[in-house]
Amino acid sequence: MEPRDIEFFWDAASPYTYLAATQIEPLVARAGGKLVWRPFLLGKVFEATGNRMPASVPAKAKHLFCDVQRWAQHYGVPVAFPKVFPVNSVLALRAGIAASAQGRGAEFARAAMKAYWADGTDISQPGAVSAIAASVGLDGPALLLQAQEQPVKDQLRANTEEAVKRGAFGAPTFFVGERMFWGNDRLVLLEEFLCGKIAA
Amino acid sequence: MEPRDIEFFWDAASPYTYLAATQIEPLVARAGGKLVWRPFLLGKVFEATGNRMPASVPAKAKHLFCDVQRWAQHYGVPVAFPKVFPVNSVLALRAGIAASAQGRGAEFARAAMKAYWADGTDISQPGAVSAIAASVGLDGPALLLQAQEQPVKDQLRANTEEAVKRGAFGAPTFFVGERMFWGNDRLVLLEEFLCGKIAA
Repeated sequence: MEPRDIEFFWDAASPYTYLAATQIEPLVARAGGKLVWRPFLLGKVFEATGNRMPASVPAKAKHLFCDVQRWAQHYGVPVAFPKVFPVNSVLALRAGIAASAQGRGAEFARAAMKAYWADGTDISQPGAVSAIAASVGLDGPALLLQAQEQPVKDQLRANTEEAVKRGAFGAPTFFVGERMFWGNDRLVLLEEFLCGKIAA
Repeated sequence: MEPRDIEFFWDAASPYTYLAATQIEPLVARAGGKLVWRPFLLGKVFEATGNRMPASVPAKAKHLFCDVQRWAQHYGVPVAFPKVFPVNSVLALRAGIAASAQGRGAEFARAAMKAYWADGTDISQPGAVSAIAASVGLDGPALLLQAQEQPVKDQLRANTEEAVKRGAFGAPTFFVGERMFWGNDRLVLLEEFLCGKIAA
């Protein structure tokens, strides 16, 4: 891994990951570097670290979508609270692994997060994942089959375990070498680090 | 309470509250409004809401000070990890209530947070609180006595209960009327809201 790779650990189930995903490509274009999209399973990160999803605290859950909507306004991107929340994103993430193997990981990731967080699609459903794949020029039914292959499942598990081992406890998580940046709200710090404005 | 009051619920024990405290006055000067500093006891907010301090998750604890240092670099403000952490801030907060009654609430709050987060002072100690009071032109020993009066204790408890009732679950918490903004990392959204750039 080149030091200047910017690894983006994403799970489509996370609203702040969707928000960050709408901003990260122009950020990396400005700051320089190579963006690497890496699906991981946030639920397993929470299990491994003892962290919890924000919505597990009732007062946080109540505030969450207001906050997400403010960020969406700040960025000028669409958002709509999904009918199915939280969602089981494992199939979509496995499909993200399979899409990466075909060089379409970024396109699939963006499309999956937009489907869930802007269009209200229940991305736990195979038909939805197939349609997302098709929308980025992939063969949907074929991708669904690939998503169920053991090496793909193993890769998602390995990504998740690797992220935890490197210090991740939530999403989105970005790594630049071993420097970790957690959260949509840290994109400003990530960019300043990439531009040499903050030291570490 | 005028709708344009910006209420700042602060606890000196919180690093992100210190960071926000270094930025909020210029922000309010730019955006317009009246800043109202209100001490509250974050530990009791966590108890009441089921939320937890970030450092209670080991992986978060490990990342916390790196993140705080980045923000300090971003803002150009000093920070040093305190030897005593977490700290019992209840005396400092009660003194903050007493200082407010003498029209020095903002000065005391800023000085208390700087003492703890930049100078490494153990603000749980009466001598430290007295010195902080003196540094902002108050009578330290007299303020310590006032801090132990029942109405002052009651006011701190009432502030905390009020914040929880209005939806707070962490610190810093800002209210503009009933709009709540949580976190140093939401100052950008608070400012945009105050300037009418985001709707709610």
